[in-house]
Amino acid sequence: MASLPAGVGWRLLSSLVLCLWLSAAAHAATHHHEWEISYQFKSPDCVRKLAVTINGQSPGPTIRATQGDTIVVRVNNSLLTENVAIHWHGIRQIGTPWADGTEGVTQCPILPGDAFTYTFAVDRPGTYMYHAHYGMQRSAGLYGMIIVAAAPGGPDAEPFAYDGEHAVLLNDWWHDSVYEQAAGLASVPMRWVGEPHSLLLNGRGRFNCSAVAAEGTCNATLPECDAPVFDVVPGKTYRFRIGSLTSLCALNFEIEGHPMTVVEADGHYVKPFVVNNLNIYSGETYSVLIKANQDPSRNYWLASNVVSRKPGTPTGTAILSYAAGGRSPPPTTPPTGPAWNDTMYRFQQSVATVAHPAHVEPPPPRAGRTLLLLNTQNKIDGRVRWALNNVSFKLPHTPYLVALKRGLLGAFDQRPPPETYEHQSYNIYDPPPNPNATSSDGLYRLAFGSVVDVVLQNANMLAANNSETHPWHLHGHDFWVLGYGIGRFDPAVHPASYNLKDPILKNTVAVHPYGWTALRFKADNPGVWAFHCHIEAHFFMGMGIVFEEGLERVAELPGEIMGCGKTKGGRH
Amino acid sequence: MASLPAGVGWRLLSSLVLCLWLSAAAHAATHHHEWEISYQFKSPDCVRKLAVTINGQSPGPTIRATQGDTIVVRVNNSLLTENVAIHWHGIRQIGTPWADGTEGVTQCPILPGDAFTYTFAVDRPGTYMYHAHYGMQRSAGLYGMIIVAAAPGGPDAEPFAYDGEHAVLLNDWWHDSVYEQAAGLASVPMRWVGEPHSLLLNGRGRFNCSAVAAEGTCNATLPECDAPVFDVVPGKTYRFRIGSLTSLCALNFEIEGHPMTVVEADGHYVKPFVVNNLNIYSGETYSVLIKANQDPSRNYWLASNVVSRKPGTPTGTAILSYAAGGRSPPPTTPPTGPAWNDTMYRFQQSVATVAHPAHVEPPPPRAGRTLLLLNTQNKIDGRVRWALNNVSFKLPHTPYLVALKRGLLGAFDQRPPPETYEHQSYNIYDPPPNPNATSSDGLYRLAFGSVVDVVLQNANMLAANNSETHPWHLHGHDFWVLGYGIGRFDPAVHPASYNLKDPILKNTVAVHPYGWTALRFKADNPGVWAFHCHIEAHFFMGMGIVFEEGLERVAELPGEIMGCGKTKGGRH
Repeated sequence: MASLPAGVGWRLLSSLVLCLWLSAAAHAATHHHEWEISYQFKSPDCVRKLAVTINGQSPGPTIRATQGDTIVVRVNNSLLTENVAIHWHGIRQIGTPWADGTEGVTQCPILPGDAFTYTFAVDRPGTYMYHAHYGMQRSAGLYGMIIVAAAPGGPDAEPFAYDGEHAVLLNDWWHDSVYEQAAGLASVPMRWVGEPHSLLLNGRGRFNCSAVAAEGTCNATLPECDAPVFDVVPGKTYRFRIGSLTSLCALNFEIEGHPMTVVEADGHYVKPFVVNNLNIYSGETYSVLIKANQDPSRNYWLASNVVSRKPGTPTGTAILSYAAGGRSPPPTTPPTGPAWNDTMYRFQQSVATVAHPAHVEPPPPRAGRTLLLLNTQNKIDGRVRWALNNVSFKLPHTPYLVALKRGLLGAFDQRPPPETYEHQSYNIYDPPPNPNATSSDGLYRLAFGSVVDVVLQNANMLAANNSETHPWHLHGHDFWVLGYGIGRFDPAVHPASYNLKDPILKNTVAVHPYGWTALRFKADNPGVWAFHCHIEAHFFMGMGIVFEEGLERVAELPGEIMGCGKTKGGRH
Repeated sequence: MASLPAGVGWRLLSSLVLCLWLSAAAHAATHHHEWEISYQFKSPDCVRKLAVTINGQSPGPTIRATQGDTIVVRVNNSLLTENVAIHWHGIRQIGTPWADGTEGVTQCPILPGDAFTYTFAVDRPGTYMYHAHYGMQRSAGLYGMIIVAAAPGGPDAEPFAYDGEHAVLLNDWWHDSVYEQAAGLASVPMRWVGEPHSLLLNGRGRFNCSAVAAEGTCNATLPECDAPVFDVVPGKTYRFRIGSLTSLCALNFEIEGHPMTVVEADGHYVKPFVVNNLNIYSGETYSVLIKANQDPSRNYWLASNVVSRKPGTPTGTAILSYAAGGRSPPPTTPPTGPAWNDTMYRFQQSVATVAHPAHVEPPPPRAGRTLLLLNTQNKIDGRVRWALNNVSFKLPHTPYLVALKRGLLGAFDQRPPPETYEHQSYNIYDPPPNPNATSSDGLYRLAFGSVVDVVLQNANMLAANNSETHPWHLHGHDFWVLGYGIGRFDPAVHPASYNLKDPILKNTVAVHPYGWTALRFKADNPGVWAFHCHIEAHFFMGMGIVFEEGLERVAELPGEIMGCGKTKGGRH
């Protein structure tokens, strides 16, 4: 564990304590997983569709481990003509930046017939996820959950108690293939796939078979699309680990009649607060506690509803089952969630999410560098794209990690993207006055150990009166969420209101419609790290950037991350 | 042109003459093509579907050149997550075995974002084709035609005259994606995609929109699916170049009211014979001459019909237009072809195809080695597979060409597959008594310059009373077609009846239901060459073998064919 990041003050101390403690612990284990990736016909919402599966399953198996353990996943690509790469979402990959699984950033894709072994440590307890990070492949079904238990008796022990635990992985689902979705996005004019056909809970949904065009492809009697059932015993307290890997939708999750106490977010303990329903954005995880204290003679709905977009998808459902209720559906109509366009409701829940008092990691008091990133929808060569400061991101064909470490000139644009925009004059409530953007695969190089602030400023899209929620996910780090606002961010005013006392650490955070979100992180993890909107289509359309830091501290790269672009055919 | 194969007797002389003649020719040109491979929404039969396109087109552009020219095609893979490789069907790749485009045999696949340059000579005139040779990608639309004119005044000048020329490329087409097709074939039980939805002529067909399930996906008014029109002037003679790249179907091609004189097959001149309709198998090309001598006040159908399988697909059509008829459809019903199950009709046309008297290349009088290959349908681990002598072929992940040239042990099974089967006792009219097969990526190594006979023996499939036509295609060579039979091949009897006088040279030949086909070739082209059933699903399911010859004469391999399997990441 000597590879834990060098920190300062409390953080350093905390790390050292954990490090010593983990070193002394005799129980750290290595978990080996052998995965085969293949296309299989699946009917997650009763409608048959090809899905990318792990060992025949979508979602894939849940990885379970204890803090300090090592995970080894050998990924065998049995797709026919398609490559693959798998990202371990929320795992910082300290000392193993080549195992982050981000195609174009940290590795070349894994070819059909090839295998790739991901080896990484899970150094913190919490709820994490994994998913394909190549093209829009995540939407094809390659995703799953990682659950890391706190090391028994360690400093990261949970500051809450419960009797049982359940896990719920949320997703949205289309009957169109990801090829159709991606080709449509890249078409001129854009051919939008439309709202999801279904919302899935643990890979299961329920489409209305009578609405399916192609005969014989929908079968509502398949056990495969039975509603998931979560058993509870009256009087007991349950932890629900909830993750979202939607391609598109912001969701609201509710357990009918059971208020939820939020206790964990993205692997960090939260100052407990109670909600009737939880807003969750793609890339986020939460743990909530519920008490099974309702009438035990019946069952209750788990419900997933679209928010932030006008919903065109039925509620996703599962069943909370008290033993007396058996597996039967509740007698009620599933909750429909809050008003989809109640931005302030969601905003307030974001703001309410702060660090647990006993687990505050204070942020550095100030940043050495600040990036102001204006999130806009633009056009390039007639194609709709997303851009930051008018630059739309494109992945290079040689992974940055290899290109930078080996000095492969010409692998990407050496000019860094802009650090700011005309924040004084840009009207975020109007469509972009000049929708034309440029595209670039340039990246931001950060001084190792420096403190970086990023302010994500949302704005109006190409169409008037439209601004979407963007969940931004940072690889290789957690960041402190210093503040949120609605409206124009003013660097002369708003930083004074940052929460430096107990900001939550997260790896994914929402930028609300017409809003801004400020975050801070320490560039202390040697490697190259993507930072992007977690909406699959948005990153595909350019809504991301990349950071490099401490490259000189990265150990020798494993050969298996190479094989594409300038590393093809033994050239390097 | 010093890389022409060393021949014997007439063949050597012929080669030398051509060689000297071509060297003296000042007009040999190099044709550069820049191709971008991408998915695009296409409606080849009026039904919208994603197709793999070349520069936005499917079929791709026709490559035109003159004998002796060099073709340079730079292939840029703009697919999102999918690799690609392109085979130049019928081009022998003498001296350039790495440009054959056969994934797993001669190259690693081309990754998204990468480019690969194919450079090869077209040393003979004739009608050839190109298509993807990776997974079942050919069926996704990546295919086209290569037309090589005879060098003016050279020894290969055409022994026939005509006033104009048309090209017709035939295909079959499904609305299901190749992913669905392939996943279905690999499923247990097998999920068969069914008969093609349409037959295409030059990439155009016509599906009945009222039979399409998904609303809005069929549009019969799209110019894209208008019937192709071929203009003729009364009294003139036209050469029609006809190629088939069907995934599945044996076809019968007819030009209503216009008998066809067959003059070329697979780039070799045929002793002219007249047919009312032409049987053509996937991978074959023919040239026919027709005289525009019918009533010029109307138009006539070109028709493509399924044979050898019970048809479940409407006739594919195009229009032969006399000027007076404009673009209007003929007043008649399109020809429906011969009885689909008239094997003898097709057999006789195969037998009738022999070399043009002035262009006979006599085969070597005897072979040094004979392979007897029993073609059967089998099962492996519950999956339906095809096998030769009970061995089902699987491609290795490291291309043979690289593995053999660099001595990469363990890249494939070093044990060669069997050379024969129990030909005395095997009853070809019954389903296989033991349907279990093994799979292997072993190959046959041939002595350089040796003469090899291959007898392909067809048999009953897994289901009783079923035997299909298999069109076998050899890479890197033409072979002499020495004989055909229906029934059991007897090596003690049938070779005496071989046609050694004027056998046609071809690169693709049909093995008829319950029949056998005997062919001979000279192992004089240094490289590694696939030999397989050209039905896309059949090769995918194991119906192929591979030959190596003269590997020590292969020049240094270009780095760009590497990057997968044991050549990944600079290991070799």
